[in-house]
Amino acid sequence: MNAIDVIRAKRDGGTLDEGQIAAFVDGAAAGSWPDYQVAALLMAIAIRGMNDAEAGALTEQMAASGRRFARRTPLPRRVDKHSTGGVGDKTSLVLAPAVAACGLHVPMMSGRALGHTGGTLDKLESIPGFRVELSPAEIDRVLDAAGCCIVGQTPDVAPADRRLYALRDVTGTVESVPLIAASILSKKLVEDLDGLVLDVKCGTGAFMRTPAEAQALARVLADIGTRCGVPTEAIVTGMDHPLGRTIGNALEVHEAIEALRGEGPADLHAVVVRLGAEMLVLGGAAASRAGAERRLQDAITSGAALDTFARMVAAQGGDARVVAHPDRIAAAAARTPVPAPRAGFLARLEPRALGRAAIALGAGRRVLGDAIDLAAGIRLLRVQGDAVAAGEPVMELHHAAGAPLDEALALAAGAITIAEAPGPAPSLFPQ
Amino acid sequence: MNAIDVIRAKRDGGTLDEGQIAAFVDGAAAGSWPDYQVAALLMAIAIRGMNDAEAGALTEQMAASGRRFARRTPLPRRVDKHSTGGVGDKTSLVLAPAVAACGLHVPMMSGRALGHTGGTLDKLESIPGFRVELSPAEIDRVLDAAGCCIVGQTPDVAPADRRLYALRDVTGTVESVPLIAASILSKKLVEDLDGLVLDVKCGTGAFMRTPAEAQALARVLADIGTRCGVPTEAIVTGMDHPLGRTIGNALEVHEAIEALRGEGPADLHAVVVRLGAEMLVLGGAAASRAGAERRLQDAITSGAALDTFARMVAAQGGDARVVAHPDRIAAAAARTPVPAPRAGFLARLEPRALGRAAIALGAGRRVLGDAIDLAAGIRLLRVQGDAVAAGEPVMELHHAAGAPLDEALALAAGAITIAEAPGPAPSLFPQ
Repeated sequence: MNAIDVIRAKRDGGTLDEGQIAAFVDGAAAGSWPDYQVAALLMAIAIRGMNDAEAGALTEQMAASGRRFARRTPLPRRVDKHSTGGVGDKTSLVLAPAVAACGLHVPMMSGRALGHTGGTLDKLESIPGFRVELSPAEIDRVLDAAGCCIVGQTPDVAPADRRLYALRDVTGTVESVPLIAASILSKKLVEDLDGLVLDVKCGTGAFMRTPAEAQALARVLADIGTRCGVPTEAIVTGMDHPLGRTIGNALEVHEAIEALRGEGPADLHAVVVRLGAEMLVLGGAAASRAGAERRLQDAITSGAALDTFARMVAAQGGDARVVAHPDRIAAAAARTPVPAPRAGFLARLEPRALGRAAIALGAGRRVLGDAIDLAAGIRLLRVQGDAVAAGEPVMELHHAAGAPLDEALALAAGAITIAEAPGPAPSLFPQ
Repeated sequence: MNAIDVIRAKRDGGTLDEGQIAAFVDGAAAGSWPDYQVAALLMAIAIRGMNDAEAGALTEQMAASGRRFARRTPLPRRVDKHSTGGVGDKTSLVLAPAVAACGLHVPMMSGRALGHTGGTLDKLESIPGFRVELSPAEIDRVLDAAGCCIVGQTPDVAPADRRLYALRDVTGTVESVPLIAASILSKKLVEDLDGLVLDVKCGTGAFMRTPAEAQALARVLADIGTRCGVPTEAIVTGMDHPLGRTIGNALEVHEAIEALRGEGPADLHAVVVRLGAEMLVLGGAAASRAGAERRLQDAITSGAALDTFARMVAAQGGDARVVAHPDRIAAAAARTPVPAPRAGFLARLEPRALGRAAIALGAGRRVLGDAIDLAAGIRLLRVQGDAVAAGEPVMELHHAAGAPLDEALALAAGAITIAEAPGPAPSLFPQ
């Protein structure tokens, strides 16, 4: 199969068949297609698009390009969740143990912080000893012990995606729905799931800015995932405001532990219950969404979810005492308040600017490989709709003593809009 | 100027401004844009297209990316011709001296054989001693001596085009009219011309297969050349039959010398006079096409064109005695006839297959860098429309003694169609 023939077919708006897509994925994974040919086809796909059959074949071939983590036994059923990325989104830390506490397995492979969004693996590494790089045998042992794990992708998972992802970033082909779908779903197919829930974030802090864009991506993702043999639901959730009240790795683990105790912020709880209910229904652990929501609520209220989290932390080498003593997690040496510029209502807390402020504090990465300060971040003291007095702290920046703050303070101050009236609350589930 | 922003703008169907095009051309020439970014933008251009202003800016920037061969004095006026490539096309060898004999300068930079089409430089190198790699000072001396030169492109001419050309070939972006136009025209802008004639070949032996495609390319080329400050005419000429009766380097030089004497084939003569007349009018050496055609005819009849050719050969280090003694040019050791499979009329002699047969004999290159046999080629003994007897030779293959002939014989035989009636003659100037 000649690379140029495949590229030409898509350039001219044609539909690629399975053999052509296999040639592309094999060529990308094995390196026999040079960068310029991969880039040319990525651009042709970005402009010409792919139908669901093409995107499904691309997804399956990408999953097949590397190692798969097949289950040893058909039961317990396996489900997972993936988010397209937001600010302050610690949902996975609560959701995985809560769902596992309801009897399903959650073999979650997750990622690192990049750009203005955080990464679940970085958050967990703020727990002393927690290991995210596990072998397949270790993953099985963690699932046996806790029912869930949260681990990094090893280099042998979907190697074709690794190459495409890196090239998309530098060729202006990130914003292509079939390429986004294949990238997300191929890594999830590898987990050998019975059901998958996708959290498509929508708003100024997310990749998709409008509900219409997010719903369109959600539909395609659900269709392609299901077409690839994993029953998939995609839920659009709001990202016009940070989720919860913390941004930053250790701060978010703190907040997740509070949420697992039932003492977390209401928006985080609502998202956990909404996504978790879909997972329980897909995994056959509940017959209805209402029943599933009750089971999740019970798992949190009873302490089973928190206990599952503690078992996962211990099984992955972490210090499970953090559950009872969150002060064992790294804390920042210094805090700097960000005041309200005038009295009124907090009409807007723009999440993307806050994500960038957190990066400026050292909590995230500008480019892959940057070191991060796990204790750094932002705690919101007021959220959208709250009344504030002039000069009253809206949030506090957590940082190392003596850290330069100019950029973070400017970004954080710029994220605040004060108005005469509280305005509408940000929508958690925009339609 | 961020490469990804430029790529995205074209991906989304936007118009690139001069600054964006300059960033692309500079990045391609200097290497600061990696292959994958150049490839991504080439594909976006291939799909989204470019308007004339964009293609003009691309052409000018590519010409400006390297050395220019500016004239020293405003007179004589300078004109040139470029062909999109055909089989048996030795037009340049006749045209350049014929036009120079009429008082204009023709500073022709030409190319090598690649694929099924021949290359003027290879043809000239079948003249003992002929040098095609000349310095700018040497080019000026040849123009002073003969009024024309035919030389190779030095690496410092349009280096951006060199990179784009190589990448287009391997990324399925060859067939893009603005990219074709910029590649052709940028190298001609470098010659500092008063007029340019483009010979857009049309037919099965050419890049453009239909008159409509060829006329469309011709229009765009003429518009962009003129927009870039060089009055440009583009003429569509037929390539459904080889031009003249020879294919192969030394064979074609022989035939060109016959044509310069007024003893060549009629189709070659007609193309030379048609293109040459446009050049004379553009260069102000004739007021009308009819007058220009008479001047060219006179230059051939009087021997002035042949004399100019001899002076060019001598000035470029070649053995000018070939003009009077063409047997000084390399000749093949062996000839093998290709017979008519049955009696009838020669209804078709497919040029692309004959071009490939000539490559199989060693007359051309499959990939750049292949060595070629300058004496190898094909001489047509019959042309389209001729009556043939069964077994009568239609052509003879010229080759080294003992050369393998299976592929060439199969291709040559496959190029022959015999019919009951002669059929229409191939059109030399299809509309």
